[in-house]
Amino acid sequence: MADAMWLTGPVIRAAAGSHVFCVDNATGETPVSLRLRGEIVDVFGRPLVSDPAAADVVLSIGRTSFDSDDAFRIREERGGGDGVRTFIEGNTAAAALYGLYAWVRRIAAGQSCADYESAPQQSLRMIDHWDQVDGSVERGYAGESIFFGDLDSNEHIDYRYFPARPGADPFRGDMARIEAYARMLASVGVNALALNNVNVRGRAADLMVQPLLGRVAQIARVFSGFGIKLFLAINFAAPKKLGGLSTADPLDPAVRAWWSDVIDGIYEAIPDFGGFLVKADAEGEPGPMQYGRDHKDGANMLAEPMGRHGGIVIWRAFVYNCKQDWRDRSTDRAKAAFENFMPLDGQFADNVVLQVKFGPMDFQVREPLTPLIGALEHTNLMVEFQITAEYLGHQIDVNYVLPQWLSMTGFDTKAPAELTGGDGRVRAIVPALSPNPRCSGYAGVANVGMDKNWTGNKLAQANLYGFGRMCWDGEATAESILDEWLALTFPEAGEAATKAIRGIMLTSNRTYENYCAPLGVGFMVVPGVHYGVSVNGYEYDRWGTYHFADRDGVGVDRTVATGSGYTAQYRPDNAAMYEDVDTTPDELLLFFHHVPYGHVLKSGKTVIQHIYDTHFAGAAAVDGYIEAWDSVRGSIGEADWANVAERLQRQRENAIAWRDQINTYFYRMSGVPDEHGRTIYA
Amino acid sequence: MADAMWLTGPVIRAAAGSHVFCVDNATGETPVSLRLRGEIVDVFGRPLVSDPAAADVVLSIGRTSFDSDDAFRIREERGGGDGVRTFIEGNTAAAALYGLYAWVRRIAAGQSCADYESAPQQSLRMIDHWDQVDGSVERGYAGESIFFGDLDSNEHIDYRYFPARPGADPFRGDMARIEAYARMLASVGVNALALNNVNVRGRAADLMVQPLLGRVAQIARVFSGFGIKLFLAINFAAPKKLGGLSTADPLDPAVRAWWSDVIDGIYEAIPDFGGFLVKADAEGEPGPMQYGRDHKDGANMLAEPMGRHGGIVIWRAFVYNCKQDWRDRSTDRAKAAFENFMPLDGQFADNVVLQVKFGPMDFQVREPLTPLIGALEHTNLMVEFQITAEYLGHQIDVNYVLPQWLSMTGFDTKAPAELTGGDGRVRAIVPALSPNPRCSGYAGVANVGMDKNWTGNKLAQANLYGFGRMCWDGEATAESILDEWLALTFPEAGEAATKAIRGIMLTSNRTYENYCAPLGVGFMVVPGVHYGVSVNGYEYDRWGTYHFADRDGVGVDRTVATGSGYTAQYRPDNAAMYEDVDTTPDELLLFFHHVPYGHVLKSGKTVIQHIYDTHFAGAAAVDGYIEAWDSVRGSIGEADWANVAERLQRQRENAIAWRDQINTYFYRMSGVPDEHGRTIYA
Repeated sequence: MADAMWLTGPVIRAAAGSHVFCVDNATGETPVSLRLRGEIVDVFGRPLVSDPAAADVVLSIGRTSFDSDDAFRIREERGGGDGVRTFIEGNTAAAALYGLYAWVRRIAAGQSCADYESAPQQSLRMIDHWDQVDGSVERGYAGESIFFGDLDSNEHIDYRYFPARPGADPFRGDMARIEAYARMLASVGVNALALNNVNVRGRAADLMVQPLLGRVAQIARVFSGFGIKLFLAINFAAPKKLGGLSTADPLDPAVRAWWSDVIDGIYEAIPDFGGFLVKADAEGEPGPMQYGRDHKDGANMLAEPMGRHGGIVIWRAFVYNCKQDWRDRSTDRAKAAFENFMPLDGQFADNVVLQVKFGPMDFQVREPLTPLIGALEHTNLMVEFQITAEYLGHQIDVNYVLPQWLSMTGFDTKAPAELTGGDGRVRAIVPALSPNPRCSGYAGVANVGMDKNWTGNKLAQANLYGFGRMCWDGEATAESILDEWLALTFPEAGEAATKAIRGIMLTSNRTYENYCAPLGVGFMVVPGVHYGVSVNGYEYDRWGTYHFADRDGVGVDRTVATGSGYTAQYRPDNAAMYEDVDTTPDELLLFFHHVPYGHVLKSGKTVIQHIYDTHFAGAAAVDGYIEAWDSVRGSIGEADWANVAERLQRQRENAIAWRDQINTYFYRMSGVPDEHGRTIYA
Repeated sequence: MADAMWLTGPVIRAAAGSHVFCVDNATGETPVSLRLRGEIVDVFGRPLVSDPAAADVVLSIGRTSFDSDDAFRIREERGGGDGVRTFIEGNTAAAALYGLYAWVRRIAAGQSCADYESAPQQSLRMIDHWDQVDGSVERGYAGESIFFGDLDSNEHIDYRYFPARPGADPFRGDMARIEAYARMLASVGVNALALNNVNVRGRAADLMVQPLLGRVAQIARVFSGFGIKLFLAINFAAPKKLGGLSTADPLDPAVRAWWSDVIDGIYEAIPDFGGFLVKADAEGEPGPMQYGRDHKDGANMLAEPMGRHGGIVIWRAFVYNCKQDWRDRSTDRAKAAFENFMPLDGQFADNVVLQVKFGPMDFQVREPLTPLIGALEHTNLMVEFQITAEYLGHQIDVNYVLPQWLSMTGFDTKAPAELTGGDGRVRAIVPALSPNPRCSGYAGVANVGMDKNWTGNKLAQANLYGFGRMCWDGEATAESILDEWLALTFPEAGEAATKAIRGIMLTSNRTYENYCAPLGVGFMVVPGVHYGVSVNGYEYDRWGTYHFADRDGVGVDRTVATGSGYTAQYRPDNAAMYEDVDTTPDELLLFFHHVPYGHVLKSGKTVIQHIYDTHFAGAAAVDGYIEAWDSVRGSIGEADWANVAERLQRQRENAIAWRDQINTYFYRMSGVPDEHGRTIYA
């Protein structure tokens, strides 16, 4: 049986207590309200009565008038006798469901339930699965897809594609696992999910039509009960591939009619279908530009029929020239998203959302915020995060990523106050600047698979948990989210062990950064795999990710004065900050500037000495983790302990490889010895 | 239908003429003598009569007494009338067969057949197939295996393994193609062939037992007719995997008995079976060292039962630590073969052959000769060449490799005259120093696949042809072998086109060297794939292949004085030559020495300027090839022309990528500009 993640038995039992529950529904019954009743009976195993007066936990639906239909309140009433009665209230059944699991969480974390009210910061709180119909998961590090594949298969082949499955049914059919997953997501407020990889190849293009659509509908029904709308990633060339048309030109009437029919068919099978997720004209995928049209033409063509059913179109902004020549210094991949989409600001339909990766490159451990966020003023916006640890250690290395994400969502874009109402931070402007705030939010690429513990490394569950919590409660801190997760996941751990795990996790993102590519330069990874060090792995490749290290210095000059001019894409205050080597934050120095190895950082260290110091420190920190983890043994379940212990040994190897290769590479380049005389292999 | 390679219709027709043939066999009929008769009827399409007096081409068997049973003589007799009668004579049917195709060749090449006598320099003239039972070919660049795979399948997936084939029969069963191949090999004197890859995985281990052995026997029968003995590569752990024993310890009586039974079974099915080819204790393959035994124990254990049937055991010397740490400067992969096998010299059974790669590393475009050759004094020896172009351009880039091979076989090992009889060159000492000369020779890794033209690039056929010719006629030159091949392959080409093709091919190996890793340093290739440039691809890896470039210099110090001490493995004169930077040949400088970029070569150029010059020259040469090839159009078949034209375009891309990445890498490292101010991308 799969791991219970953060809805562990003791936590559920502690909340369930000896309570008698009532669902007091002032609205009509819906899939969610029925599921809510089911939760009490199936999960909490407690009596569910019809008369609110006979219950001491009342889930009240439709008797509030919160601004948000997802908002809930938890309050306690002291009754006539000695009892305390708890009310969990919201406009909708989904709100009550969110409130129910918030109540569980608050009990486990020792937080008061006397009077607690909460509304989500982001409207769309979405998980994107890069699952493939052959059972593989692109960038999946926890085994095969929970949706697709053979019942008993769980190969770990990482980024490669499986051989085509000849069988007729690509679905795994493990509905119990899907239900458990949906519950887990709903418990942290997730309300949208894309079922399949944005690279839509082979039979994946057929998911939106019968007969596969029928199987998709079965899965959608499970998610529906938990208030989660299902989305499908689609192939823009489907009118040709599936429809037998001679073109996929979005302005062609036959193409438009074909899509309209397909969308009508989907809503027949899945009445609350969420919509489409589209990667077009990117990294080789088809799109409207093949027909001389632009992204707006493509997105709006789909949005029209989708809108008739209340659906939306999520259009990815991850568009760049992936056949760049390393010899070409005039092109800068970091500029691509802004250049492609700023000219279209204001031209997308009301139910189109632009999904933008948080950084201008691709989910590195250190990137600046993409300048597109804060620049767009008339376009619905979703920020894309990657929960799966493609560049962050493949769920082998411990990497609790909330500190990094929250620094991104807390970054002040300097968007003008007259537009934002005064708060220019990412988390505030996503709803504030989206013309249709219902069509805005965050998306995170899933990190789960068929591994028993869902995420390969047990501690990687915290990132899935944290993503949901960050979408909802944007002002929560990385520490407070981690404390909740620890209380829910390891309720038995005790103070010392909890402190030890907390210490590892809170520093883990910085530790990973310390032993990776220095000072924001990024991408010194093994090509394709993206795990492990290869300083020059991408240096002479076509992906636009270069470090330009030579015997004198290192870094990418993205200034207006002497470089690619990327800094000009930011709002003026930020542009000025990044343009000037003296005001650029140390940790992003090599992202924006090419500097000599002797350049002195704000820390007082030279760049070369900083490289050495952080790499020795990063690897040493992992030794500390191993020691700390040893002290945890016996305080948590042995299987979980052993899982992480094994991963930490592999992380140690990885960290040492990074330390030594980075140090040697830059020593060979610079000729500058370490000030402290530590071992750098010549 | 497959390409006819060098046995083209016009060439066969020219030889067949209006002749009447006779096979005058003074010995008993054998599979080879029967096949010889078949050749006249099936291939030459001419009358075959019983009475020698009624024939004007007489193939005479068993009436000569040459030292070598493979030797033949071709002579002409002027008859009483105006006719000339040709006699092709040898001790055996195989000798007559070799003579027959030599006669064809000499006619095509315009050489005299009046009185020509020839004996092979090497006894074993062997082709090693790295074909796998799933249909793939490890390091194959011409499609799938001609032996294994599905009838209609010819995927090009290079070095990767195919998914396991679920079907029961791994054999392709294209017996016509196998016969054509066997004829081609026999026509250049090949007399041994290993059917399957030395990495023996999965069902490949079962080839030596029924039921698969029965299918192997069908293939062996085809080769038998052409005088070619079939060998199987085996898995040393077979007693455990197949036999159900608890060990594969070569000194365990049950293990020995099991192998003995297996070998008896093979000879029952294949009476002229050649023997085993064994990769043991190498790159992760099992071997005797797992049981505390050594290579001699493993090889001799197999040799004993094999010897009862006249079979031999070929034991590969490609043994090194493939989990080296790049930080470890005390280990030098180049030293491994010598260190592993010199202590065992004289301890192998009489029918064991050690198969040694020509260089100490792995088939780079420039390596010194391995010091093991010339050092071994009491061990049967085969030299291993790689016809397939793993490191030589994947049969995309034109690379006629005979100049390189012949420089290897012509290298003077300086083995003492009292042992060699005075000729210390590789080609002479292989038979001279092998205690059992019958068990010595050359092996070449096959370069053919299911591609219509067998070798991907039409011009790569010349390397297969040349390998056979080099085994037989060791004193032939790269030029003379090429001229034969051109006359046989493009008999229609005419003088200008032949000259153009000849010009391309004769310079192609040097051109490839020019744009690759400089001055013998080697291995700056894309890891795994081994095509294309990646300067640091292996620099921090576990394979022991490093260049140690830093801001001051480049190269591997293998001297006794200051380096790994590898030079001491050579005989004294050669050791002294390589030990001294001033007497080391320029082209091997960085293989033996780490020198500053400003080091002046014998050519008068600095190392850094040599790097720039050769890389510009190498890429420019490919432009010249394209121009020259354009001039060939119309002079040879259009399909062959187009095939090479397409490959040359890809070679051009490859050469430019090498040029620019090598030049930029070393410019960034050294900071030294090109003397001629050509474009080097910073």
